[in-house]
Amino acid sequence: MTVIRDAAATRQRLIDAARAEFAQYGIAGARVDRIAANAAANKAQIYNYFGSKDRLFDAVWESVVQQVVESTPIDATDLAGYAARLADTYTQHPEIRRLVSWRRLERGHDGPHLFAVQNAKATVDAIAKAQADGTVSDHFAPGVLLALIINVASLWTTGSSLEVLTVADVSAAKRQREIIRDAVECLVAR
Amino acid sequence: MTVIRDAAATRQRLIDAARAEFAQYGIAGARVDRIAANAAANKAQIYNYFGSKDRLFDAVWESVVQQVVESTPIDATDLAGYAARLADTYTQHPEIRRLVSWRRLERGHDGPHLFAVQNAKATVDAIAKAQADGTVSDHFAPGVLLALIINVASLWTTGSSLEVLTVADVSAAKRQREIIRDAVECLVAR
Repeated sequence: MTVIRDAAATRQRLIDAARAEFAQYGIAGARVDRIAANAAANKAQIYNYFGSKDRLFDAVWESVVQQVVESTPIDATDLAGYAARLADTYTQHPEIRRLVSWRRLERGHDGPHLFAVQNAKATVDAIAKAQADGTVSDHFAPGVLLALIINVASLWTTGSSLEVLTVADVSAAKRQREIIRDAVECLVAR
Repeated sequence: MTVIRDAAATRQRLIDAARAEFAQYGIAGARVDRIAANAAANKAQIYNYFGSKDRLFDAVWESVVQQVVESTPIDATDLAGYAARLADTYTQHPEIRRLVSWRRLERGHDGPHLFAVQNAKATVDAIAKAQADGTVSDHFAPGVLLALIINVASLWTTGSSLEVLTVADVSAAKRQREIIRDAVECLVAR
């Protein structure tokens, strides 16, 4: 039992260390020996538990999707509030959007991740149901509306160039949140 | 004269090769010797003309900003059309949004680029003027509206995760363009 518990604890420490490492340096730039050292483990354990650096990244990605889904459940009756909460999650955990960006840059050619697709589908289904119930406009297809919502929610964390952010001059987090809620209200009512 | 012309040609070949290299591998991942070889030049010329790999990236970034401004001038009387044309530029030159993303990931701590800020300011001024003239709603501050427009314009090129794009199932480029125009029309009229 202790061995199994230790193995699970080591695996979790490796995922946590890998998350920080991948967020900082990307997939190609991440160093397996640095991850092992920061997890108080060794490289052999990484290959034992995950098989490769790429599969370790997949495990990190799955943990990120799980975290977002659990901390920010979809509320299709209040999509503007959902977008504002998503933005809060992105701001509180800046590594999330960094991992999304690294993944698109370095894994764009790969297929999407099954677990993440299942979650995206469940979210789209919730929006489709709200559209069928008439609480959300069906102007945009449900998947398109989700893409727009996530896009707007990431406005201040990955959506714009440094220069546009400088010129936009939105320093207060509260105002940033209001802008996201406001923009999504507009899209939902269209 | 010939020497000067050759120098300008070599400098341009280096910028072109660097643009492709940085778009593919990012700033840390880019290899100066590969850039030199692809430009039919040598590493010494890179350091002569640009000083360092980082300054070479700055030169690439400036050329990207220039290209976007020249190919897609702001039309504040038709911001939805402007967003659709921006999206076309991003789709035709996928390296543009990749360079934006790499820069945010690897240079987020740096200050914004002066030339790019000047261009962003000019664009914001054009939107502010249209708002003062009453052709664009002043619901959003002009800089915020620009940030939202660029964000929506990059919806299909960097704005969403692979999974959301899969679920959104928007395959036809024309439909993608319409969605961007549509969403921006909504924001401009708010």
